[in-house]
Amino acid sequence: MDIKSPKYALFLFLFLLVFSADAVAQPGTPAPTNVPGAEYPRVLPDNRVTFRIEAPEADSLQIDLGKTYDMERNEEGVWTVTTDSLRPGIHYYSLIIDGVPVADPASKSFYGMGRWVSGIEIPYEVDDYSIQDVPHGDVRMQRYYSSTTDSWRRFFVYTPPSYDSSKSRDYPVLYLLHGGGENETGWVRQGRTDIIMDNLIAHGDTTPMLVVMVDGNMPAEGMNGSLKLFREELLNEILPVVEQKYRVRTDPDNRALAGLSMGGLQTLYAGVPNSDLFGSLGVFSSGWLPNQKEIAEEQYAYLKEHTETFNQNMELFFLAMGGKEDIAYENNQRMMKRFDQIGIEYQYYERPGGHTWPVWRDNLRAMAPKLFK
Amino acid sequence: MDIKSPKYALFLFLFLLVFSADAVAQPGTPAPTNVPGAEYPRVLPDNRVTFRIEAPEADSLQIDLGKTYDMERNEEGVWTVTTDSLRPGIHYYSLIIDGVPVADPASKSFYGMGRWVSGIEIPYEVDDYSIQDVPHGDVRMQRYYSSTTDSWRRFFVYTPPSYDSSKSRDYPVLYLLHGGGENETGWVRQGRTDIIMDNLIAHGDTTPMLVVMVDGNMPAEGMNGSLKLFREELLNEILPVVEQKYRVRTDPDNRALAGLSMGGLQTLYAGVPNSDLFGSLGVFSSGWLPNQKEIAEEQYAYLKEHTETFNQNMELFFLAMGGKEDIAYENNQRMMKRFDQIGIEYQYYERPGGHTWPVWRDNLRAMAPKLFK
Repeated sequence: MDIKSPKYALFLFLFLLVFSADAVAQPGTPAPTNVPGAEYPRVLPDNRVTFRIEAPEADSLQIDLGKTYDMERNEEGVWTVTTDSLRPGIHYYSLIIDGVPVADPASKSFYGMGRWVSGIEIPYEVDDYSIQDVPHGDVRMQRYYSSTTDSWRRFFVYTPPSYDSSKSRDYPVLYLLHGGGENETGWVRQGRTDIIMDNLIAHGDTTPMLVVMVDGNMPAEGMNGSLKLFREELLNEILPVVEQKYRVRTDPDNRALAGLSMGGLQTLYAGVPNSDLFGSLGVFSSGWLPNQKEIAEEQYAYLKEHTETFNQNMELFFLAMGGKEDIAYENNQRMMKRFDQIGIEYQYYERPGGHTWPVWRDNLRAMAPKLFK
Repeated sequence: MDIKSPKYALFLFLFLLVFSADAVAQPGTPAPTNVPGAEYPRVLPDNRVTFRIEAPEADSLQIDLGKTYDMERNEEGVWTVTTDSLRPGIHYYSLIIDGVPVADPASKSFYGMGRWVSGIEIPYEVDDYSIQDVPHGDVRMQRYYSSTTDSWRRFFVYTPPSYDSSKSRDYPVLYLLHGGGENETGWVRQGRTDIIMDNLIAHGDTTPMLVVMVDGNMPAEGMNGSLKLFREELLNEILPVVEQKYRVRTDPDNRALAGLSMGGLQTLYAGVPNSDLFGSLGVFSSGWLPNQKEIAEEQYAYLKEHTETFNQNMELFFLAMGGKEDIAYENNQRMMKRFDQIGIEYQYYERPGGHTWPVWRDNLRAMAPKLFK
């Protein structure tokens, strides 16, 4: 049916007439992350969100979106609350039933915060993060046996739209790391990496590249043991598999490493002393923690000794921050001050939004066009 | 430290990880589906499972595994229950907190039962369903625009280990459909299709093939509308994308269609009248429902008229059932009686386990070696 035809107008009119009865009572629209058929949570025009859950036997219900909202019960045992306005993009949240934080059965679940947690997606106005009518790359799941951890592990690889047809072409590659409590699915599902890359490539804003999204969780005690083991995993296990199996360029100018939060620390730890391997580094919402003084000082000492080499090797050293409200803001500020004292060159990029996925999606979109020039 | 802050959650997570050495007193082992660090649920040597959840403020906790188990509270507000013995493989379950069924935060979540539900994996003794030291294929996510539904959809494609190296070889292809309340991730995550196929291929038990795992959920009213629309989606959208993008053989003897439960009905509906397209059909835990009489009779009438052609075209017509305890058992029995009356040839395969994923994994493992001989 032609949407400009009078017939369509009549159809629309009748359709609205028939279905408006249900629509009046419910303001807003179901979130894109709702499971099929779930009418709530609903996103209001000002991006506040109304949650509604039937739980007549519960004593207390809350929604935890970082900020905790108490829900109110009506006589039928239906609980509701409307939140503050949320930023476009995806946000983790929990439903707390009588003190137990669980995933909301009405929303999609994602692996984050060390468990399967709910996500709510607030639609964007200008949307570079949704599927557009452009050529699409693949996301491939790659299993590999790691001698470092003595176990089967996996990563995901984004291959750009041209990868299968341009069979003699080798591509640059970005290794992309998730945060603490997340895993290799984070950049695929929460991050929408393939959609962001598809859109950037289609608009000529970035060079086609592979993006390898790995599992940064290591069977090691403590953060420092984990950092060391991850560096081994990346260099001795992941890089060889990628470079044997995929058509990627293997010179440092065509190899980049970036990560968010914990993945930012892994990027610093594995990347900074290996600028002859990784010609570009991206550190999102991260910086050495106060209790990582020893490891940080070791790195600053290294950089003091190799300032010129490091600056020369780095095509891009990209530090991104989600504004002052980002929990990593102070750590990052402190680190940049040290970089400045040493004479390390970097690009600082700040957008508000805190320590959240809307910020990290934007970080990827901002960094990718600067890579592999 | 605010116990509701994400920082506290992370701290708690790391704390539990470090102090898991206290596990000596606990019988059994954490299930493979537990999230990192979760000590419960634990699988006992006889495959009973102990669940343990801290919820001092809740009035009632239950575990719903098809059978519902009431949990018992101790003085500290810790609730426990031990279930009956479970069959090896994966089972859906819910935690019910004061009457609200939710996913257990201690387990992996899967899309099933129309929402993100918990899964618990009971380890196998002889394990053809776990990653072995054999060559591994990929699973690729493929996005496509469907004119039939006027939306972007996606499917997953298993490509066998040789696919990338044998560049001039075309492969047979199996289209594999999930059940009601599931989606295209079902055969990847719950079904472990890639692992089953990798193992079968490595042992020479099946010919290397592509397996296309599609989304069978359609924006249509009622089961019959949905069946019709799915047939259009499969034939007019999915097949052309697969056959244009992947190196697959396009003769009916090298094209198969199979599905479980709702996917079994879709297989009958789309496959039976198209035996010139699909030379093999697999129907797992399925059969026309009593309220689908019209659609069933239409199909039986078609088969009466084309008995010889259908029997000749079918390389394999595989009907699998999870024993008498399978909720689809009677529907399937009734259907097979009609097939017998008409003279339709099929292979019947029955293994106990009911309407569950352990059965469907086994069905795939049993059917794949019979395909594309």
